[in-house]
Amino acid sequence: MKIGISTSSFAAVDKAPLDILKSEGIEIVENPYGRKLTETEIISHLKGVNGLLAGLEPLNENVFKSCPELKAISRVGIGMDNVDLAAAKTAGIKVSNTPEGPTDAVAEMTLTAALILSRSILPANVAMHQKQWKKSIGMGLKNLNILIIGYGRIGLRVSKLFSAMGAQVKICDPVVSQDDLQFGEELLELTDGLKSAEIITLHAGGIKPILTAAEFEIMKDGVIILNSARGNLINEDALSEALDSNKVASAWLDVFKKEPYKGKLTEYDQVLLTPHISTYTVQCRRDMEIAAVNNILRDLELVK
Amino acid sequence: MKIGISTSSFAAVDKAPLDILKSEGIEIVENPYGRKLTETEIISHLKGVNGLLAGLEPLNENVFKSCPELKAISRVGIGMDNVDLAAAKTAGIKVSNTPEGPTDAVAEMTLTAALILSRSILPANVAMHQKQWKKSIGMGLKNLNILIIGYGRIGLRVSKLFSAMGAQVKICDPVVSQDDLQFGEELLELTDGLKSAEIITLHAGGIKPILTAAEFEIMKDGVIILNSARGNLINEDALSEALDSNKVASAWLDVFKKEPYKGKLTEYDQVLLTPHISTYTVQCRRDMEIAAVNNILRDLELVK
Repeated sequence: MKIGISTSSFAAVDKAPLDILKSEGIEIVENPYGRKLTETEIISHLKGVNGLLAGLEPLNENVFKSCPELKAISRVGIGMDNVDLAAAKTAGIKVSNTPEGPTDAVAEMTLTAALILSRSILPANVAMHQKQWKKSIGMGLKNLNILIIGYGRIGLRVSKLFSAMGAQVKICDPVVSQDDLQFGEELLELTDGLKSAEIITLHAGGIKPILTAAEFEIMKDGVIILNSARGNLINEDALSEALDSNKVASAWLDVFKKEPYKGKLTEYDQVLLTPHISTYTVQCRRDMEIAAVNNILRDLELVK
Repeated sequence: MKIGISTSSFAAVDKAPLDILKSEGIEIVENPYGRKLTETEIISHLKGVNGLLAGLEPLNENVFKSCPELKAISRVGIGMDNVDLAAAKTAGIKVSNTPEGPTDAVAEMTLTAALILSRSILPANVAMHQKQWKKSIGMGLKNLNILIIGYGRIGLRVSKLFSAMGAQVKICDPVVSQDDLQFGEELLELTDGLKSAEIITLHAGGIKPILTAAEFEIMKDGVIILNSARGNLINEDALSEALDSNKVASAWLDVFKKEPYKGKLTEYDQVLLTPHISTYTVQCRRDMEIAAVNNILRDLELVK
């Protein structure tokens, strides 16, 4: 039995997930590139492989036709946009993900970004390292209007953390009703939420952009935008224009339309940028990797 | 009834505190200089004034003798070093301050710093702005050992926030007993706390250093140090050596022995530096100003 790994840093922080595979006598094919694979690379990587601990590389009909021995795909993470689920079903490939794994780590990172930007930490730190002592007044999170778009597992946890900080949390999610809200949040239509928020944070799925020029237009001046969900949810050009006009005061992006991201937003000091690492904590990686290993062992019927 | 204001930026961020006074029909004498007043200036400013919303200007026997109508001083802030309390008592002037004011803002800033350093946000952001996509794994706060030194108003609030993040909080405070702890924390002797903590945060008073070479020596390798309390609580040279040896992985300092600070610690990228701005939030200023207004209305017996 052969299991391929295509995430770029599997078991980097803790060998426990690999040890589980080894103890089952499984041959492991590690990612030789240390980055996301292209379609050609993943096809070559999957030669003779029965199961894949998958990253975000393309896993489509063409790949499945070229790799007939592949019987299970276990995403180390939540997002499945890179997997053609219908084609996988046709090819008889079982697909799983680890929906619980990233919740704590992503919510924590979102709070971190909100705090950094609302309290203007970055310019203060840069000035201090240049031996300049410049005090300025920031915004605390207390009583601030936070709009959370998407009230799934992560949105719910983000809401819990912001509520603990004393923020006024508003939720926008078309499939949620007021009764579903856990922390006394207010449910708003998107337009109403965008108009009143001081911080807007995305925790939605889907491939359609949610924030485009039209949405930036109706936001409050000086709004803070956070995105740790999906790169395609924000039109990056529209964000860039909204930063230029000071409609958006600052933003944090951990996800991008094209990764690795080297685009225009790297030129804005007021944009906090991280390389898709919201889930990159020792605690989270270990929990998710072990869950993914357990999923693939189950789907390959190697454990009961 | 006439109330003078001598702080330089009263109601600058939010008019609500002034509106309370106006709604009571009180005549307001604002600070005409926009800076700290001299003794001569405050005497002239207090002519015919019954109460003062006070900054850090000298408020001594001479001032009180020159201003017989002054019946209440309400400091907008904690520090009372500029007020001669004995002379005020003799003159029949009631004096108050706003000790609760900074609690939320300082606790929030401490959490911010812990998150920034434990999740290694700063190097990731710098690399991204240089168009380098370098993922690295950080530590989340979940299950991390946090030592809080000093369990006063701010230490207690810091503990609440870290507990909400899922951290294991330990307390060291010689005047606190296990029964005083509010969030299931563990009370430790300083030595035991220093040995086991992954993050150490100072919220103590006093003028004696708490962290010197001997204390750094017994800490875990890679510890994170946070100080928003008083600059003298850490020996800055010893911290610098502990950073050089990687005993201390990173640190946040908002207070310094000598301010404005331009010393050696500005040369360490892994040290997050802010210019004594933990209380600098719109919310904190507003809350303190409203508390100060309520204090002066009470002391002038304008409200029950």
